[in-house]
Amino acid sequence: MTANPTADATPGEPGNPPTSSRPTTGFALNVEARADADAFAHLVAAVSGLGADIRRASSDGDTRRLLIACSGTDHQVAVRATLAGVDGVELIALDDATFALHETGKLRVQPTAPLDGPDDLAMAYTPGVGRVSTAIAEQPSSVWQLTGRANAVAVLSNGTAVLGLGDIGPEAAMPVMEGKAVLFKQFADVDAYPICVDAPTVDEMVAIGAAIAPTFGGINLEDIKAPECFEIERRLQEMLDIPVFHDDQHGTAIVVLAAVMNAAKVIGRSLSDLRVVVVGTGAAGVACSRLLHESGIGDIIGVDSRGVLSADREGLNPTKQWFVDHGNRAGVTGGVREALAGADVLLGLSGPGVIEPEWLGDMADGAVVFALANPVPEIMPELVPPNVAVIATGRSDYPNQINNVLAFPGVFRGLLDVRATKATDGIKVAAASALAAMVPEPTADRIIPGAFDEGVAEVVAFAVARAAEAEGLARDDA
Amino acid sequence: MTANPTADATPGEPGNPPTSSRPTTGFALNVEARADADAFAHLVAAVSGLGADIRRASSDGDTRRLLIACSGTDHQVAVRATLAGVDGVELIALDDATFALHETGKLRVQPTAPLDGPDDLAMAYTPGVGRVSTAIAEQPSSVWQLTGRANAVAVLSNGTAVLGLGDIGPEAAMPVMEGKAVLFKQFADVDAYPICVDAPTVDEMVAIGAAIAPTFGGINLEDIKAPECFEIERRLQEMLDIPVFHDDQHGTAIVVLAAVMNAAKVIGRSLSDLRVVVVGTGAAGVACSRLLHESGIGDIIGVDSRGVLSADREGLNPTKQWFVDHGNRAGVTGGVREALAGADVLLGLSGPGVIEPEWLGDMADGAVVFALANPVPEIMPELVPPNVAVIATGRSDYPNQINNVLAFPGVFRGLLDVRATKATDGIKVAAASALAAMVPEPTADRIIPGAFDEGVAEVVAFAVARAAEAEGLARDDA
Repeated sequence: MTANPTADATPGEPGNPPTSSRPTTGFALNVEARADADAFAHLVAAVSGLGADIRRASSDGDTRRLLIACSGTDHQVAVRATLAGVDGVELIALDDATFALHETGKLRVQPTAPLDGPDDLAMAYTPGVGRVSTAIAEQPSSVWQLTGRANAVAVLSNGTAVLGLGDIGPEAAMPVMEGKAVLFKQFADVDAYPICVDAPTVDEMVAIGAAIAPTFGGINLEDIKAPECFEIERRLQEMLDIPVFHDDQHGTAIVVLAAVMNAAKVIGRSLSDLRVVVVGTGAAGVACSRLLHESGIGDIIGVDSRGVLSADREGLNPTKQWFVDHGNRAGVTGGVREALAGADVLLGLSGPGVIEPEWLGDMADGAVVFALANPVPEIMPELVPPNVAVIATGRSDYPNQINNVLAFPGVFRGLLDVRATKATDGIKVAAASALAAMVPEPTADRIIPGAFDEGVAEVVAFAVARAAEAEGLARDDA
Repeated sequence: MTANPTADATPGEPGNPPTSSRPTTGFALNVEARADADAFAHLVAAVSGLGADIRRASSDGDTRRLLIACSGTDHQVAVRATLAGVDGVELIALDDATFALHETGKLRVQPTAPLDGPDDLAMAYTPGVGRVSTAIAEQPSSVWQLTGRANAVAVLSNGTAVLGLGDIGPEAAMPVMEGKAVLFKQFADVDAYPICVDAPTVDEMVAIGAAIAPTFGGINLEDIKAPECFEIERRLQEMLDIPVFHDDQHGTAIVVLAAVMNAAKVIGRSLSDLRVVVVGTGAAGVACSRLLHESGIGDIIGVDSRGVLSADREGLNPTKQWFVDHGNRAGVTGGVREALAGADVLLGLSGPGVIEPEWLGDMADGAVVFALANPVPEIMPELVPPNVAVIATGRSDYPNQINNVLAFPGVFRGLLDVRATKATDGIKVAAASALAAMVPEPTADRIIPGAFDEGVAEVVAFAVARAAEAEGLARDDA
């Protein structure tokens, strides 16, 4: 076990056992313990012997503080038990690092200036504030200068499709939306307000999104289930003059398109030449397919839980019918295996382990596999056959992580910077192109920047802002 | 002109001209100028000669920075013109301090912990966050520990009754709600989220308030017009298990009740002995009257724009009928003048200058006058006749400022501290009593603490929390 599990990743080399369970700080323990040098050495050996990974360590004399990454809750239990039994080690505190981080929430609302006395109060509040409100009432566009609207995004969710957890409701969705707001701030200095709502229906979500719009410069829809998410976004974007962007769809689509652009370079093909099989036609699968189509991809075959979307399928909803009308030119029928035969790209947005290695063997030489189910991909990178030239996952512990955080902070930064009125396909393609261009010479192990690479959000924001201007969607006064 | 205009206030002493226009930082100019000592002396003399007031000054050699309080926009124009003409003064910058403060808004959303790399990301976001969401889905009450909900308040407005400005809409209401959020943070460390909504009707406001509730530990309704505000609050409080508190009503009512309690002490009377005339039966007038009634005040006579609310008035809405059913025991009819004859307390919540001095002369000896219209009271303190023993206004430049900021931060702090499910009249009375008790020996010039007195919010919060517990409204796990 090394400190950097990414170094172990060997995509394209079969033979390793499938594992969903490398150590991650998502399952880390915070440990504070007293131990002299010998006892500490035993502690480190014991932890490493269990396959856990010490990510951070600091000492103050014999007092040691550790962040120990584990691979799951069972592993945490084993590590806890082992720690308690190391001779000479006195445990002072031992808790779950993730839960500790989330305790009391991850955000605070802070004033930009102190309020030290009546003179400050008279400016920030009455009577001064009345003049500012009057100015906005008289000239509505001044709201963009005189309030926080120009930097504020609502992260709006009804909690009906949270991560891979499903319809767990608005309260349980809150940690995710708070986390999203943290990312917005960290990567793009956007003030994001998590708003989790009890609004399970399309009409309720549309009503709420429309009502809160005056407060925000954009709305990031999040973790809303399909097919409701499509209508909610469409109706809101039609009603409102601020961008409405369902990140589960478009954040993923932008990063996928960027990665496909660069993967095509790696295998020396053009987009118009590629046949893509999309497994999973939920929010992300649909949005990725549409954006790939918009970008001139050769052919797209959609596969849902019942098989290939083809002309012989009856009673398809409009979202799924789109795949029949806009793709599957060869009229393939059957299941994933039949769809993959001879295909160039697999885009998996479905569930863990649903793809067999031998099916990939039937793909074209120099195939591209995106296995994006998270945390356990459709197929582990270790298991893909030799004809697969490029593999990407949603995981940080393998190369080519397809991570929405590469897109949404920069996208909203760019939209806010020009006070854009809409987020269009053209803007999304511009974001994807900019993201792809950040890796000028892509390789099989690097088709996409890393989440923490310098300048990602800035580059995306710049491209988005220029695209919005070019489409005439920037506000004049921005 | 002194640096502290409050020192000039001489309540109860008639003869001064009515003025709505003492200098305030609400109309302040930020000035940066180069001036040697002589020129600077001329500048100060010129500014003072115009009745403006230098509140802050700093120098860096000959570079001077000043905050000059003015009394209105015309006054600002005059001061600007004068500043431009002072010999030896070179103006570098000259702008409106209030607008400068509000530029780009007054709030930022800040993460509680940095996000420095993939290990932080795995805890704050996926995969770690999924475990936190799962924990809340499995045990819903853990949302109070694992998210910011327990410290978060929505400041929800539809902008239909903003300050004295009326129905100026949600965008123009934003500066006020942001200001409110600043006060929440500064006085009580509450994370307040301004949410201005396009929702002019009762049903829309109720739908939105109910929908966003899962995100917050309480809802502060703000600047919603009467009578809609009454139904919105009532329905929301019935539907939700978090406190719903319309500050324009109850914040004012709590501070007024506290001030009446102490004014009664000053004049040596008991509440049950006092006849109160309430001029103005909007949101604040109604709530103050109800809370005074709840606290055992002797009699209340309501007066609206058509005169005294009495049995002979036809077609009164339920809110106004309340005054007939619960007060006006003597069956007074007529207008404000008739109502005031022999009354002990005037509570003005109406408009500027609507009360004549001679009407007050007909009140009881040792009368109490609250002239709370803002910024120009129903009658200026300088004009009240000698029988008035105590006068209070909404202004910071006279003694006895009735300011909601004395109530709402502490009220919500207390409610959040015990995760209260409701804000009841009993809780409001407890808040008022605690506030009154902060001035153990009230005098005519000090019946209520100042907004910046030490410990106000803490004392109110403590009383509110205990009252909520006593009423069985605290959540068990708080």
